[in-house]
Formats: sequence, structure tokens, C-alpha cells
Amino acid sequence: VIAPDDRGFTLGDGLFETVLAEDGRLQHLDAHLDRLAVGCEVLGLPAPDHAEAERRMLVALADGLDGTRAAVRLSLTAGAGGRGLDRPDPLRPFMVATAAPAPKPQTPARLVTSSVRRNDQSPASRLKSLAYLDNVLARAEARAAGADEALMRNTRGEVACAAAANLFWIEGGRLLTPALACGVLAGITRARVLAAARRLEIEVAEVRAAPDALDTAQAIFLTISLVGLRPVESLDGRTVAMWAGLAQLAAEV
Amino acid sequence: VIAPDDRGFTLGDGLFETVLAEDGRLQHLDAHLDRLAVGCEVLGLPAPDHAEAERRMLVALADGLDGTRAAVRLSLTAGAGGRGLDRPDPLRPFMVATAAPAPKPQTPARLVTSSVRRNDQSPASRLKSLAYLDNVLARAEARAAGADEALMRNTRGEVACAAAANLFWIEGGRLLTPALACGVLAGITRARVLAAARRLEIEVAEVRAAPDALDTAQAIFLTISLVGLRPVESLDGRTVAMWAGLAQLAAEV
Repeated sequence: VIAPDDRGFTLGDGLFETVLAEDGRLQHLDAHLDRLAVGCEVLGLPAPDHAEAERRMLVALADGLDGTRAAVRLSLTAGAGGRGLDRPDPLRPFMVATAAPAPKPQTPARLVTSSVRRNDQSPASRLKSLAYLDNVLARAEARAAGADEALMRNTRGEVACAAAANLFWIEGGRLLTPALACGVLAGITRARVLAAARRLEIEVAEVRAAPDALDTAQAIFLTISLVGLRPVESLDGRTVAMWAGLAQLAAEV
Repeated sequence: VIAPDDRGFTLGDGLFETVLAEDGRLQHLDAHLDRLAVGCEVLGLPAPDHAEAERRMLVALADGLDGTRAAVRLSLTAGAGGRGLDRPDPLRPFMVATAAPAPKPQTPARLVTSSVRRNDQSPASRLKSLAYLDNVLARAEARAAGADEALMRNTRGEVACAAAANLFWIEGGRLLTPALACGVLAGITRARVLAAARRLEIEVAEVRAAPDALDTAQAIFLTISLVGLRPVESLDGRTVAMWAGLAQLAAEV
């Protein structure tokens, strides 16, 4: 039961992780729990002790699933109480886990650039925090424009990410993605793609990319824990080519 | 009961208002409900129908209070469901109200400038949204530095507001406050101060203020619905003078 004064509900004061469960097995759970621990440190929440309680909660939930492809979500909040913005002392974090079906999208994504900017000038921009309203607004803007997903730039105008995905593109034979300092989530699949590309000896770089960097991209794709790699077929109505190397990279991830 | 998949909890997808109740009477309730309706429009939530349900919920809660000075809070969310960032169709908004004692601070505020920037490049920066984590982080930073409240600048570096208050200052006999376009909440008390100052024939202006604008301020004060006008006694450790006109202005507000 979520208390009406739980700070996750009242202020977005908390974090979440969404883990893919396939046949009841949680994919890359350690990486998700590691990221959660880093987020706790940034937010000043007590770091989960080896995240054992979190792991048990997620595994118990996944065990109860049948063979459906599912998103298993853990929300960890600063708990109930406090006065306004000030956290209570002692802090008693609260956790809840939920599961929902997660069918894999079968089509490439159509992106439109959102007017909502990613706040790279807050540490929360690099976390999966419960304060995800900017992303909700960006996605709604993209849907209203007939697209599937939003391309978000940061407050400096640099290319950052999609509303619920990291972003990669191919330019002159190189694989590029915005640096974390651009205000993007340290995506689990993002890190796996970077490692896989290096193993395949594809030249990769994490960059600060100007607003028009994607105009000359040969291909664009998204990375999402629940999906994997999803190609982009258009950006702002302009058709984007598919990258011939995508399947090989995806197999290595 | 808050559902574990309520979008207010999972994503900060919603709004709140915190209304001061004195002797069970809600102060400036119409102004709060008007602001809530504007916020619903910005977020694409169904606008409350004359906010009658919201009003009844708040009044019923305030009626149950004894004479204590209290903060009565209404949270309005996009409701349960949806898939990831995408809202469900139809949308079923959810509301909950809570009350807590709100003693009036008896001391002036000590401010320190926060490293967390206000995202003026998102419409959410002008709303009391459930995604208030940047403000929580700014306040925590201020507390850790031994201060009461954070001064927040926006992504352009301009002076914006405090973590939970609007900001005014006196400069060369003029009363100044950041324009809403700087990414600040359209505060109820802020609007009342502007109107009161005009009645008192004090010269006022809503401005875009450079980062160092407060260095030469003759006085600084905060406005907060639950408090009224609160003078600032120091900024980043530098003592700030009190403004002789504050009591007269407060009486007119």
C-alpha cells in the first residue's frame, strides 16, 4: 500500500528500474540493481545493502509470471513523511514491484523532435527517477504528431536521447551516442551496445552532438531494456535508412 | 488508495496544490483551483469541471481540522494504467487530499545557491507538478550547507526562484521578481504581492535577471502560500539587509 504522503507520490522523490522478464527469467538484473544503487547515492537515499531485498522482491514477482514477455518494475522511494521538500529523519525508504506484459514492437520507430528539453543541468537527468514528467510530455507531443517516440535535446540544444530510450547513430562508418554528460540515462542496453561494438571492432564514440548532428546520420537506432535495439525509420518526417550492420550488432549485445 | 500503477506515483504525471487552512478556512482557494485548471490544460489532463469535486474534497478535509494552522494538499494524477510513458485511453484522473500542521517559520531565511538548475525549457517548470525531484535535491543541498532554502537559477543561468518559494528583491527602489518565462511557478502569493505593490504605487517589474543580479540587491524576500512573505537574511553566507517596506507590503497582500 502506497501512503498518500509517500514522497515518491507527492514529489517524485525516488527511483525505478524496469527489468525484462522472459520465461520468468529477469534479464541483466545485476546491472539494473547496480544502477539503482548508484541512483540512491546520487539522491542521498540509503544504498540498498547489496540490493538483496530488491532482488528478492523482483525474483518473487518474476517467478509468478507464466511464459509471457513481461516488464517487471521496482519503484524505490524516500518513503512517507517529511515536511514539504525536507525529508524525514530517519528516512524509511519504501519499495513496491509490479509486472505488466511487454510485447516487443515489430516496427521501426518514427521520431519527432520534442520542444521539451532534457535538463542536463540536474543530476536527476542521468537517473530513472520517479519524476519523469518531462519524458511523459515529450512522448505525448510525439504521439500527437503521429510519431512513436520523441527525440529530446538538452538545454544546450545538443542531441540527448528519446523519451524512453537511448539513441545511437551511424556517421561516416562510426557508431555515435550522446555522452552521459549530455543528460542521458546510463542505459543498460546502451552500455551493452558500446561493449559489443568494441568487440566487433566497430569504431564507437560518446559525443556532444550539435542539434543538426542527425541530419547527416546514415542510420539511427534506439536502445531500450524492454526491447533491445529498435531501428528508426524517420525523424521529423524525413526517412532514415536502415543500417546493414544492425542485426550483427544486436546478436552480439 | 493509491494504485501501484498510478502515473502520479510511477512517473510524476500529475499536479498538486497546497492550500493554507487557518481555523478551518482555506485561504485563496479559488486562485489555487484556477491554477490547477491551467496546469491540467498544460499537461493535457481533463480540466476539472469548475473544479467542484476538487473544492468539495478540500473543504471537507479542512472542515475536519481544529484551529491548527494547516497545509491542505490536493494531488491530482493522470490515474492508473497506460503502457510506459503513454497514457491510457480513456484517462481516469485520480485525486487525493491530505492535511498536515503548517507552523509559520519565525526566522528569516538563509539561502544558498544550488547547483541544480530549474528547467525553464520544460512547461512543467511553471507548474506544481508531482515531478518535484529537482526541488528536493536543491533543498537537500541547501540544508547540507547549513541553510534553510535553495536559490535556484535556470538553465540559462538566470535567477529563478527558491526550491519552494518565489523570490523578490529590492534594487534601486524597485521591487523585482523573475518573469514566469524564467521557469518559475506562477505563485499565488507572487501574484498578490505584484498586485499589492501596484496598489501601494511601488514600482515593480518581472525581469530576466543575470546570475549576479542579487549581488547588489538591497533586500530579498520569499513568497510562499503557506507562509506569506518571508525575509531573507543571507545569501551564500553574505548578510542581506531587511527591507523597511516589507511589513506595509505584507499587510496589503
